[in-house]
Amino acid sequence: MRPSSSRSEQPPAAGAGLLSGLSGTAEVDAELTDRALLTALLDVERALAEAGAEGGVLPASAAAAIAGRCHPDGFDLAALAAAADAAGNPVVPLVRQLTEAVPAAARPWVHHGATSQDVLDTALVLVATRAGEPLLRHLDTALDATAGLADRHRDTVALARTLGQAAAPTTFGLKAAGWLLALLDARTRLAAARAALPAQLGGAVGTLAVLGPAGPEVTARFAARLGLAAPRLPWHTRRQPILDLAAALGSLLAAAGKVGLDVGLLAQTEVAEVAEGGGPGRGGSSAMPHKRNPVDAVLIGAAARRGPHLVGTLFAAAVQEHERATGGWHAEWEPLLDLLRLAGGAAARAARLLSRLDVRPERMRDNLDALGGRVLAEAVAARLAPALGRADAHDVLARAAAALDFRAALLADPAVRAHLSERELDQALAPANWLGSAGTFVDRALREYRTCGVERNPENQT
Amino acid sequence: MRPSSSRSEQPPAAGAGLLSGLSGTAEVDAELTDRALLTALLDVERALAEAGAEGGVLPASAAAAIAGRCHPDGFDLAALAAAADAAGNPVVPLVRQLTEAVPAAARPWVHHGATSQDVLDTALVLVATRAGEPLLRHLDTALDATAGLADRHRDTVALARTLGQAAAPTTFGLKAAGWLLALLDARTRLAAARAALPAQLGGAVGTLAVLGPAGPEVTARFAARLGLAAPRLPWHTRRQPILDLAAALGSLLAAAGKVGLDVGLLAQTEVAEVAEGGGPGRGGSSAMPHKRNPVDAVLIGAAARRGPHLVGTLFAAAVQEHERATGGWHAEWEPLLDLLRLAGGAAARAARLLSRLDVRPERMRDNLDALGGRVLAEAVAARLAPALGRADAHDVLARAAAALDFRAALLADPAVRAHLSERELDQALAPANWLGSAGTFVDRALREYRTCGVERNPENQT
Amino acid sequence: MRPSSSRSEQPPAAGAGLLSGLSGTAEVDAELTDRALLTALLDVERALAEAGAEGGVLPASAAAAIAGRCHPDGFDLAALAAAADAAGNPVVPLVRQLTEAVPAAARPWVHHGATSQDVLDTALVLVATRAGEPLLRHLDTALDATAGLADRHRDTVALARTLGQAAAPTTFGLKAAGWLLALLDARTRLAAARAALPAQLGGAVGTLAVLGPAGPEVTARFAARLGLAAPRLPWHTRRQPILDLAAALGSLLAAAGKVGLDVGLLAQTEVAEVAEGGGPGRGGSSAMPHKRNPVDAVLIGAAARRGPHLVGTLFAAAVQEHERATGGWHAEWEPLLDLLRLAGGAAARAARLLSRLDVRPERMRDNLDALGGRVLAEAVAARLAPALGRADAHDVLARAAAALDFRAALLADPAVRAHLSERELDQALAPANWLGSAGTFVDRALREYRTCGVERNPENQT
Amino acid sequence: MRPSSSRSEQPPAAGAGLLSGLSGTAEVDAELTDRALLTALLDVERALAEAGAEGGVLPASAAAAIAGRCHPDGFDLAALAAAADAAGNPVVPLVRQLTEAVPAAARPWVHHGATSQDVLDTALVLVATRAGEPLLRHLDTALDATAGLADRHRDTVALARTLGQAAAPTTFGLKAAGWLLALLDARTRLAAARAALPAQLGGAVGTLAVLGPAGPEVTARFAARLGLAAPRLPWHTRRQPILDLAAALGSLLAAAGKVGLDVGLLAQTEVAEVAEGGGPGRGGSSAMPHKRNPVDAVLIGAAARRGPHLVGTLFAAAVQEHERATGGWHAEWEPLLDLLRLAGGAAARAARLLSRLDVRPERMRDNLDALGGRVLAEAVAARLAPALGRADAHDVLARAAAALDFRAALLADPAVRAHLSERELDQALAPANWLGSAGTFVDRALREYRTCGVERNPENQT
Repeated sequence: MRPSSSRSEQPPAAGAGLLSGLSGTAEVDAELTDRALLTALLDVERALAEAGAEGGVLPASAAAAIAGRCHPDGFDLAALAAAADAAGNPVVPLVRQLTEAVPAAARPWVHHGATSQDVLDTALVLVATRAGEPLLRHLDTALDATAGLADRHRDTVALARTLGQAAAPTTFGLKAAGWLLALLDARTRLAAARAALPAQLGGAVGTLAVLGPAGPEVTARFAARLGLAAPRLPWHTRRQPILDLAAALGSLLAAAGKVGLDVGLLAQTEVAEVAEGGGPGRGGSSAMPHKRNPVDAVLIGAAARRGPHLVGTLFAAAVQEHERATGGWHAEWEPLLDLLRLAGGAAARAARLLSRLDVRPERMRDNLDALGGRVLAEAVAARLAPALGRADAHDVLARAAAALDFRAALLADPAVRAHLSERELDQALAPANWLGSAGTFVDRALREYRTCGVERNPENQT
Repeated sequence: MRPSSSRSEQPPAAGAGLLSGLSGTAEVDAELTDRALLTALLDVERALAEAGAEGGVLPASAAAAIAGRCHPDGFDLAALAAAADAAGNPVVPLVRQLTEAVPAAARPWVHHGATSQDVLDTALVLVATRAGEPLLRHLDTALDATAGLADRHRDTVALARTLGQAAAPTTFGLKAAGWLLALLDARTRLAAARAALPAQLGGAVGTLAVLGPAGPEVTARFAARLGLAAPRLPWHTRRQPILDLAAALGSLLAAAGKVGLDVGLLAQTEVAEVAEGGGPGRGGSSAMPHKRNPVDAVLIGAAARRGPHLVGTLFAAAVQEHERATGGWHAEWEPLLDLLRLAGGAAARAARLLSRLDVRPERMRDNLDALGGRVLAEAVAARLAPALGRADAHDVLARAAAALDFRAALLADPAVRAHLSERELDQALAPANWLGSAGTFVDRALREYRTCGVERNPENQT
Repeated sequence: MRPSSSRSEQPPAAGAGLLSGLSGTAEVDAELTDRALLTALLDVERALAEAGAEGGVLPASAAAAIAGRCHPDGFDLAALAAAADAAGNPVVPLVRQLTEAVPAAARPWVHHGATSQDVLDTALVLVATRAGEPLLRHLDTALDATAGLADRHRDTVALARTLGQAAAPTTFGLKAAGWLLALLDARTRLAAARAALPAQLGGAVGTLAVLGPAGPEVTARFAARLGLAAPRLPWHTRRQPILDLAAALGSLLAAAGKVGLDVGLLAQTEVAEVAEGGGPGRGGSSAMPHKRNPVDAVLIGAAARRGPHLVGTLFAAAVQEHERATGGWHAEWEPLLDLLRLAGGAAARAARLLSRLDVRPERMRDNLDALGGRVLAEAVAARLAPALGRADAHDVLARAAAALDFRAALLADPAVRAHLSERELDQALAPANWLGSAGTFVDRALREYRTCGVERNPENQT
Repeated sequence: MRPSSSRSEQPPAAGAGLLSGLSGTAEVDAELTDRALLTALLDVERALAEAGAEGGVLPASAAAAIAGRCHPDGFDLAALAAAADAAGNPVVPLVRQLTEAVPAAARPWVHHGATSQDVLDTALVLVATRAGEPLLRHLDTALDATAGLADRHRDTVALARTLGQAAAPTTFGLKAAGWLLALLDARTRLAAARAALPAQLGGAVGTLAVLGPAGPEVTARFAARLGLAAPRLPWHTRRQPILDLAAALGSLLAAAGKVGLDVGLLAQTEVAEVAEGGGPGRGGSSAMPHKRNPVDAVLIGAAARRGPHLVGTLFAAAVQEHERATGGWHAEWEPLLDLLRLAGGAAARAARLLSRLDVRPERMRDNLDALGGRVLAEAVAARLAPALGRADAHDVLARAAAALDFRAALLADPAVRAHLSERELDQALAPANWLGSAGTFVDRALREYRTCGVERNPENQT
């Protein structure tokens, strides 16, 4: 069901770029190249011709001839890119090249019934769908690793921190369970948004006029051939499918960003409760030989900082004029691919980070103990409040917390001693006695994950 | 089922503010005031006490005493606001005031088991839920009006425009059907995100330690009392519910923004195919007596420009540290309320705009006719392409389109005359013959709307 | 020159709002109210009438009559707000009310030559200018306090951290010097953008047609009366002044945000090198009696998270149509006021935070010492590199850094001992010997600050 | 002084990418490639070594040996990119490769005194500076063309539109003058921000510890060698230089975006007052033979929609931790390059668009005339107001504006005839008599442009 654990040992190979390799990841990036887009554009032209033939609007022979030339090797990417400038999109020159490539009899039927946006929107949807596969695979690796952490550390006592301050005991398992649900929610949204991505077919102005009465049927066949959802109506200037995808990718970046942020904070020299795993050379510093930087956490954090602005770009671009837009549509292309790329990179790095995370329960315990019980103040207050009143109990504890030795100060306080024996106080000061529903919550998150996991992979139910 | 049509005649009363009244709308704004927030905060404290009593963690008498004081009239908003600064949130002083207000025996039980964020998150969720009611009502009015436009103008021929240029015929009904689906999609997402908004209860660090084993039960009762979804786990630093709501509100603003943009463009002096309705004084200019400005369209456009940045703010704020955040959480409060406010204002203005829209079919026809058939070039090309080849047909048409009299130029072209009679040419040049699936698409959108409408209002099925 | 130090002891009084009081600050907020805006709108109408009279385009008696009624007490804010909805802006009803309030002979001259946008733009510019005064005052307090920290801690050795990891020694003074320059740069930009804010006067379409040949002169007098820069041309749809202001406010929020972020991190329980000052009740937790939260740092952080999105809103809104915009202009109003408000709140909180900051040099030293010299690895490597080569030196140090006792491991390493005596090693391991230009940099920053300070306050040069 | 006019005839060659070629432009893009970045990184390492030798911190022979290898041909981009992933930035592996490439004696001195961020920040600043050269050149072409339009059409009467509605007469020259000042303001800011970009040199933690007392001198020489401003202090986590550049680039995109927006609106079929120039094939539609799309305007619009979100990204990323950031810095890299790329593409397209713009004065006149004088209502009202009072005059005009024949309705109105003769009315209705200061404003803008132009190009003053 899950990617083999050996996969998680593999660092994501860097992409081709000096900088882009640090925000993306190889398997996802490979689906986002110009070559991949060209392939998708040609897949769309082929499906259009074949669906048209099935729908009776063009000869089967023409469809076959067109389909035969819809392979990227036959096209010159640089020439297409150069010619796109005059047309405002790459489909116009692609259709011209494709038309020239087919026999004369098939030429009138190339791109039949479609407008440039039909082809480019559908191709981008195909690209997103294809990139979604390795992306979800990385995410599944991350989920699996996170579930493992939650499971193994269900009862590992750790310090909870609020507003950066030591607060009270929790478990590392509950921290991991929070990451798990966040990643799982993002996965659910991403899988749903991806599955709902519709093909685009509307013709010049969204009426499918060229296809005559066959329009709806050709559209359905077109979408089916590409494995995409059929559009209810053409969506040239109704961009909800893009918004749903953007929100899901943004949610994934936020969820991964929280993991990266927490790991970075827990890995601080003074905290040191976790460290990024990794072989020699990872996280080294060019200037400081002693350093081991949390590289994956940092790069996830960088992607998470950029995500919301790309989400915002796509929401802003979605307000489009009339039957086709004067810029809003064009503004979507690169940000959508960037968002897929960043989400892919963040998922891959989260997978690696979580699979290799070096968790240090003893340091968690040490950090707790170093606080001399102060973070159990709430536990003591809870025992005192019924007798002293909430406000007085709060004051007693705040006073003791300011003393050098918290436990001694409590033992020396007559108001405490009137209501708690030393043994009762020590019970109150034991972190393991003040974990509330932490274990229940971990179990609940794991149960939800496992149920979802089975649903995701029906073949595994046997 | 729907708000009465008289409602749509009512302009949204302006809010209290010189400027905020122009982005919000009275009924929604009323749910977003400090008074409304205070009410929600107290509703939460009451539900907490009562759920605690039901769960056996505090005396029923204490719960009753607390509940008896949870009314906003007993509190001093200005004092709360002033005291909030030292605490970093308004819950700390509210709990203090509430504690002082109840009999001594109940005091230890005020806010029992909760942390400030539990109360403020749940109160904000309550506020969003409550504001959602008039917001969805305005949106339903807008949907109803849009469906009416799509229905009445199913066959009203109009000019489709792409990249700002006259393109080909469509129907005004199809334009409205596009608006309808966009608004409907936003409604679906908003209703779902709203219904899923969970209560928040985690205690200091998300373990519910104070509540002991009763934690999960108290949480369930707490949520149920408030009519909110029960949280799977505390979500102090796992903000997917906020992201879902933000994306839905952003989608609504984008959908309304498209309506405002199209109406503004169609209302341009030179186009004049629609005008905003409205009585005397609406859209007047202080300087130019002859003007009638599209005020609602413009104000919707203003809100739509702001929406994506608020969505982005909430996605950026969602990356939160450890068990509780150092700023990300605080950064959500006002933007979330602003987003609700802007969405409310846009929905109300869209409802008014669409209910009163002055549609001018004859002007649509005139604008089409003024183009002398050029926008049917595709129709003519479609008839010529099988004979001439796609490229040659395209060239023939482009040449004729550049002539003063398009039809005459076609009639004078031997390549055209070899394949089309004058009668066939005129059939090709008739806009009504080149609408493709426009009618089918309108029917499809209306059917979907009506089905959803019934689902939304089960009581109407009898 | 500076606000008295007692000012910095004063917490910014909370604004009127439960939540808005936590993002804004009283003195700045007071300049951003509807009352303040109304006052500014009336100041503009008065200046317009008086400048017109001076320019000879309206009778002096009319100007006097109009000026006599330009006081906010004579106007009904609620009625104006309600009437604004039909006009799309609050100026239309204001002009109507003002016209009704003046004697008949003056009525034709009310608002003479102006369009609504002239009045509202100029009023918003006035509001920004006025709010800038307390804002800059808070910022000056923050600067003063920061300069004091840099000065007092010029030689206080502290740990520098990169990517969250202990890196090498620095001084707390250099940290403060970095904050100082960042705040100073923001101040310079804000003061420049504020001083350059132009009055707006263009009439209906930016030609000042109503004013005839007197247009430029009236404009100059109008701006001069309001103490604003004169516009080169009307800037109805050329929004660079707003963008400059937005970028400056955004820079201030980023600079303050860095202070808040660093303070929050340095105040973490495990680091504890600084703490927020403040009397009883500040930063208390409703649930955890032992806690002292870094409230100001957190609230500054919240504002800093929102700033970039408001900056983005204003840049997005700046693309405006023709002679006046269809939504972009309207989208500026509230975000501009919000940005001023957040910048004010952040400046005031930074002023308070920095003025009261509890700095703990001994803890800084302890944290450094706890690392056993590892953060001096670079210093040791620098001494070894000439002999061993950079790569080998790096490896030697990395090996030693992984040992339990770094110094002992180095002493035990023959490659080290071949080139360094124990004494030389200990010199290399002394933090104070590895501060490079830290002191020079602090001096440089203080010098720049003091020079700027004098420039800012010429009266202090005596 | 200016680029030759033949330049403006050259379309910007498309970049290598199917989509990126539509947002960028060849000459700017060429400065943003990985090869260009690698070159800049090596230029930085060379300057560092040479400045170090001059400052006496490393042997001149080592500097010469290092400088001799700092050429991109000696490096394997793919290997660097792959290795960057483990280090979190590309400098670590670059330093490793460079070290291996130099003779053993020089190895300890490679990258001496610097940290990765020093090299990458300085390289990005170099890249931005270099890309700024063709960018400013394109912008100058655009400015020149715009000034030409303002000059030639100083007195070309045209319709001003506000909120999308016909408003009053103006001149096309004044429209162009507005574009001119907006572009000029952006140029001023961009040139200033570019010139102020400082080199970065701080060493591991910003103290330049490795360089000892020579730090400041080496820094000054380092910056001078690269032609960059010297930093006041290291700015590892003080990012104002990036913010200034971002704001300037964002301002340019906003200014170009307004040009694109206005051109797109003026080119609408129903308005047709301008058209994009261009040879055969530009702006053709794959589906509609008659269309000529405003391609440059649309692509500028797309870039302008993305700009504010990239500006926002950089402002958000600027809040960085301690001495070096955990993600904020990394989040800057690609957005900064993207912003440069989009600004370059927008400047190049604006240059082309404005140089070739097909302006149609007769159509402007026709559109004005078609309104039958209604847009002179303000002019008539101005003549009536002194007699009738402002409100009554307004009402008279609003009534007449609603009539079929505006002029006839006015002539038939006794209130009008009592105060205006037919000749006076016709004078009031002549657009050329109601242009106010339009000509003066055009002259003023041109004068400012010409003055700035001379300042920009001192060699032209002879």
